[in-house]
Amino acid sequence: MAQTDTRMHAIVKDRPGPGLTVTTVPKPSPGPGEVLIAVRHAGVCGTDLHIADWDPWAQGRIRPPIVVGHEFAGEIVQMGEGVTELSVGQLVTAEGHLVCNHCLQCRTGNGHICRNTRIIGVDRDGAFAEFVVMPATNVLSLDGIPTEVGAIMDPMGNAFHTVLTAEIPGSTVFIVGCGPIGCFAVGIARAAGAAKVIASDVNPKRLALAQQMGAQLTINARTDDVVRTVQEATGGEGVDVVCEMSGVPSALHQAFATVRMGGRVQLLGIPRGEVPVDFATEIIFKGVTIYGVIGRKMYETWHDMRRFLTNGMLDPRPVITHRYPLARVDDALAAIRSGDAGKVILEIA
Amino acid sequence: MAQTDTRMHAIVKDRPGPGLTVTTVPKPSPGPGEVLIAVRHAGVCGTDLHIADWDPWAQGRIRPPIVVGHEFAGEIVQMGEGVTELSVGQLVTAEGHLVCNHCLQCRTGNGHICRNTRIIGVDRDGAFAEFVVMPATNVLSLDGIPTEVGAIMDPMGNAFHTVLTAEIPGSTVFIVGCGPIGCFAVGIARAAGAAKVIASDVNPKRLALAQQMGAQLTINARTDDVVRTVQEATGGEGVDVVCEMSGVPSALHQAFATVRMGGRVQLLGIPRGEVPVDFATEIIFKGVTIYGVIGRKMYETWHDMRRFLTNGMLDPRPVITHRYPLARVDDALAAIRSGDAGKVILEIA
Amino acid sequence: MAQTDTRMHAIVKDRPGPGLTVTTVPKPSPGPGEVLIAVRHAGVCGTDLHIADWDPWAQGRIRPPIVVGHEFAGEIVQMGEGVTELSVGQLVTAEGHLVCNHCLQCRTGNGHICRNTRIIGVDRDGAFAEFVVMPATNVLSLDGIPTEVGAIMDPMGNAFHTVLTAEIPGSTVFIVGCGPIGCFAVGIARAAGAAKVIASDVNPKRLALAQQMGAQLTINARTDDVVRTVQEATGGEGVDVVCEMSGVPSALHQAFATVRMGGRVQLLGIPRGEVPVDFATEIIFKGVTIYGVIGRKMYETWHDMRRFLTNGMLDPRPVITHRYPLARVDDALAAIRSGDAGKVILEIA
Amino acid sequence: MAQTDTRMHAIVKDRPGPGLTVTTVPKPSPGPGEVLIAVRHAGVCGTDLHIADWDPWAQGRIRPPIVVGHEFAGEIVQMGEGVTELSVGQLVTAEGHLVCNHCLQCRTGNGHICRNTRIIGVDRDGAFAEFVVMPATNVLSLDGIPTEVGAIMDPMGNAFHTVLTAEIPGSTVFIVGCGPIGCFAVGIARAAGAAKVIASDVNPKRLALAQQMGAQLTINARTDDVVRTVQEATGGEGVDVVCEMSGVPSALHQAFATVRMGGRVQLLGIPRGEVPVDFATEIIFKGVTIYGVIGRKMYETWHDMRRFLTNGMLDPRPVITHRYPLARVDDALAAIRSGDAGKVILEIA
Repeated sequence: MAQTDTRMHAIVKDRPGPGLTVTTVPKPSPGPGEVLIAVRHAGVCGTDLHIADWDPWAQGRIRPPIVVGHEFAGEIVQMGEGVTELSVGQLVTAEGHLVCNHCLQCRTGNGHICRNTRIIGVDRDGAFAEFVVMPATNVLSLDGIPTEVGAIMDPMGNAFHTVLTAEIPGSTVFIVGCGPIGCFAVGIARAAGAAKVIASDVNPKRLALAQQMGAQLTINARTDDVVRTVQEATGGEGVDVVCEMSGVPSALHQAFATVRMGGRVQLLGIPRGEVPVDFATEIIFKGVTIYGVIGRKMYETWHDMRRFLTNGMLDPRPVITHRYPLARVDDALAAIRSGDAGKVILEIA
Repeated sequence: MAQTDTRMHAIVKDRPGPGLTVTTVPKPSPGPGEVLIAVRHAGVCGTDLHIADWDPWAQGRIRPPIVVGHEFAGEIVQMGEGVTELSVGQLVTAEGHLVCNHCLQCRTGNGHICRNTRIIGVDRDGAFAEFVVMPATNVLSLDGIPTEVGAIMDPMGNAFHTVLTAEIPGSTVFIVGCGPIGCFAVGIARAAGAAKVIASDVNPKRLALAQQMGAQLTINARTDDVVRTVQEATGGEGVDVVCEMSGVPSALHQAFATVRMGGRVQLLGIPRGEVPVDFATEIIFKGVTIYGVIGRKMYETWHDMRRFLTNGMLDPRPVITHRYPLARVDDALAAIRSGDAGKVILEIA
Repeated sequence: MAQTDTRMHAIVKDRPGPGLTVTTVPKPSPGPGEVLIAVRHAGVCGTDLHIADWDPWAQGRIRPPIVVGHEFAGEIVQMGEGVTELSVGQLVTAEGHLVCNHCLQCRTGNGHICRNTRIIGVDRDGAFAEFVVMPATNVLSLDGIPTEVGAIMDPMGNAFHTVLTAEIPGSTVFIVGCGPIGCFAVGIARAAGAAKVIASDVNPKRLALAQQMGAQLTINARTDDVVRTVQEATGGEGVDVVCEMSGVPSALHQAFATVRMGGRVQLLGIPRGEVPVDFATEIIFKGVTIYGVIGRKMYETWHDMRRFLTNGMLDPRPVITHRYPLARVDDALAAIRSGDAGKVILEIA
Repeated sequence: MAQTDTRMHAIVKDRPGPGLTVTTVPKPSPGPGEVLIAVRHAGVCGTDLHIADWDPWAQGRIRPPIVVGHEFAGEIVQMGEGVTELSVGQLVTAEGHLVCNHCLQCRTGNGHICRNTRIIGVDRDGAFAEFVVMPATNVLSLDGIPTEVGAIMDPMGNAFHTVLTAEIPGSTVFIVGCGPIGCFAVGIARAAGAAKVIASDVNPKRLALAQQMGAQLTINARTDDVVRTVQEATGGEGVDVVCEMSGVPSALHQAFATVRMGGRVQLLGIPRGEVPVDFATEIIFKGVTIYGVIGRKMYETWHDMRRFLTNGMLDPRPVITHRYPLARVDDALAAIRSGDAGKVILEIA
């Protein structure tokens, strides 16, 4: 597909302002400690939408021109100097967060909260392209996982991090919000031994996806009384674990109202602006633990993920509802905007 | 079946020496804080065998005459004074360890390691009888779990305690020894989200049971190279978690040889006498954590167990291989002695 | 001091409406499983102030007439039937929360979040009296701890629970709010191996108390820039653990602003009404864990407390700033209202 | 002290066979990602003794010629290419274990149990020299810690790892064996909030050192009844945490006999060959957790250590009993062999 040996197709944010451009750019080369990967599949994320829409966050962070995209999988086609643990021909995915390896967090196994993180497709060229260069340390072998699944391991990793940092075996789990990451979380909670998985959303299509991923009870937050339904399904006790994946203020209150005394609330959804909270009744008097989930643990989450995916514990593919070629990135973004999509991916090679 | 209102059939250790007697004894009455339970099913345990055989342990501990048996389920038929949280007609099982509630362990949620524990069927009258009296605090509602399953929740609780005190979701787990508790452990590990469950035993019948409970790989320790097989099945890394359920010295060494660097070994099987261990290479240089499992957590394990059993996560009934009426307790003991049995139960009512 | 054998002095909430009454009431008798304790010292708590002031919470909860007070220590003078683990003449304190012992929380070592809790001095007669009856299960031997210290182990237990449920050895700890419980927390954090303890308040007298209890850095939140001062004291990284003891909304935001990436915030202070929070920047993007602290762990916290107090690790007496006889309870309440007091206690016998 | 710009003094294992040689060797140069450090102080370890003595372990592992020594601190004098987070003139120490950064353990924050570890002074040139080259990733700034203390942070790290992976605040802790690492452990346990620290050894000089480091009770294992003394000092309950630092079989049994029901045993001492253990009574029936301690957590332990040392929580210098110049390494080894020494260090510059 590459026009010449030295240029490649890519999706570029080429100027400050709305829109993305399908164009050609120079094909990159791997430096020392890096590899060049021919991208096969890439996942489209809400972050890409923010960049396309040029919202305030994007205006503050993005410095065009830049190749966008940070979720992908593909084949190693060239090795930089000094890389020994990988090989040409290997199918891989990669963690898109490039961390400093020097700060306290990096040195104590918590690189995911490194304060010096740079993200591909945000702070440097990304993966919506025929080729991408990555540091070898960030690259993970797929070990038989299909590249279309490998391409969505980044967001799935957020779901894994959210679910597996709670105590799941035998627990009742309430997934609040059934976007792609919420739907992944449903499947992960079931695979990890949850006794009962309940899921809520306002969109019936997304609730159907959640059910397909294993939710034993789904609640339409637009038409049903969420709190009462969860209480009834748990003998009035509330659930052991809530995973808040929506960022919607009313859902946040439902999270606190449905967790049991002494339970745990995992927060991944990002509310816009401030949300008023009654700390006394919603959190303190209930003895609740809350965990703010950011990214994926590097590389504990990736390791867990490979275990689940290579042992047949979880098939995330029902969540992939839309597939487009690279050139139709605008259609991919439109599918996300519709609110009806599960995961949207680009088929690049 | 009771001959009169005041006597009942029971299996009694009536004198120091080998053997058990099927006879009638006075029917007990519940005191304050106690309930009377009509026993429906009872599980036969290795402990009962020790008492029947009058081995050195039994000679040191048992004071005849005593009704034996500590695993059971049945129906509440009479309430002692002051018991409010239970009701006549309720189907229940019970924790057979009566603890002091005053020591440090009891007061900090660790009653299972109370140093003042008394056990029914060992230190006071037990459950191989038409009726048994229990303190209400020890009684647990079955919530729809069949009494034949309720009758084996005591040993199953040991398996739950062994498995769930390790980190299971996504882990590779090796169950060493496929007696009834080992077979339960296989099913629990699968239900709790293990990535792969490997099981070993010297008896092909027991290995077949383990496979039926979900083991993805079984190893005949008599004919196969256990350590090499486990290493090969884990890419040379070893397993994350080993549950040693056999008490056999060679199996203990296999446990240490197959656990990965930094992994965890749960010890439930009871070796006789001393076992020589090379602490340096088997434990310390591997950075291994070892946990000595005794009994069940009161009542955290019971709560977990009810969650698994009432939500259809685990069906332990394939492990029940033999069923006898109360009068045929000798046949039940013979089945256990054969080494081919899974769990053996008595059908009392 | 008792007028007759059958009546005793006590502080009573005798009608709906503001005020407390110093009067005599019948001396209670211990029932089965209970003991009668001659109170020597009692602690005065903000809760007592709410009851005296007859605020909306008190109006909804308290049913006069009732003897108030829930923090105390004294001498066992009479044993109810069946109590064997205590003895007459023993100096004791007691957990004032009476829990159900049957719910999930109670049965899994989490009685402190039992939903059926009744509190002495709130839901039944309390300890601002010459005598109080307590269930033996709630009574704890002082083992040489003075009764004036025993009388404040209830609120000190909240401080212990707040501090010790975080990882303290080698950690930097920020105590937000230096009321009596905050001052206890300072001393506990030092004794538990904190690398550095920082404390903030708006009252210089309270900051002086915090310093006396071991705070290495105190910040006047009225005059200093709290967030900048904490950041500077921690090399720009923030603290590992924040204990929010004030319930003041601005302090809550300071808690989130000063905790490091991946740190932990313990919430004990009770904000009134709702506080708007920016979950994204204050909690989620920082990967923070929050724990809502309610009461004391029964009886793990009490056990820890006795260890610290009997081994000379902590002397909380500098925090006791005011002492009054029972009859001067109004002066005690006034001292608390002044905002300048540390802990205020009643000297009863 | 260096004779020329290109050679330096060093202690070398120059041939298979007993003995160490004080000689000159070429001064090394830092490659990319490395730094050159001028060594000021170095710690002498039992490992160095094994190498000098050419015992079976050394015969199997060491490939002469090699500069020995792995514990040191000094000043950075030259930077290799690409090192940005360090600077010339900085006083530093370093982790001597060079790990692969690619294996599961390395990628999940457990580099200390990397199976591909290489150790300086064992597998490549070490630190008993005027200069040593280290990868920048392994180097840690001293932040004001004296170099004589920095030089012993490697073995002190083992003590930190041993102590801080148990729950220390408010716990009773028994340190079995008062060699240098045991003595460090005493001080660390006190600083980390232990309620009581008990220490045992057969050597009165070492017991005196332990007392100096804060042990509240010391037991001479040659003349006293260790188990009875510990039981009496803990009200018959046993200690919460035992740290076994001796590797002596009888001490190992004392560790298991003195830990309380449900307690924790940390194993750092390396027994030679097999030790027979009664798993039933020593471990399983007590519900004990055992942790095999290897090395230091990279770099969590180092971070903790800097916190304790820079905040004045621990002064390990009383444990340093002998100091020699580089040329007197044989005297240093003799001091260790005597059994009376605490920590022995070399003063190099």
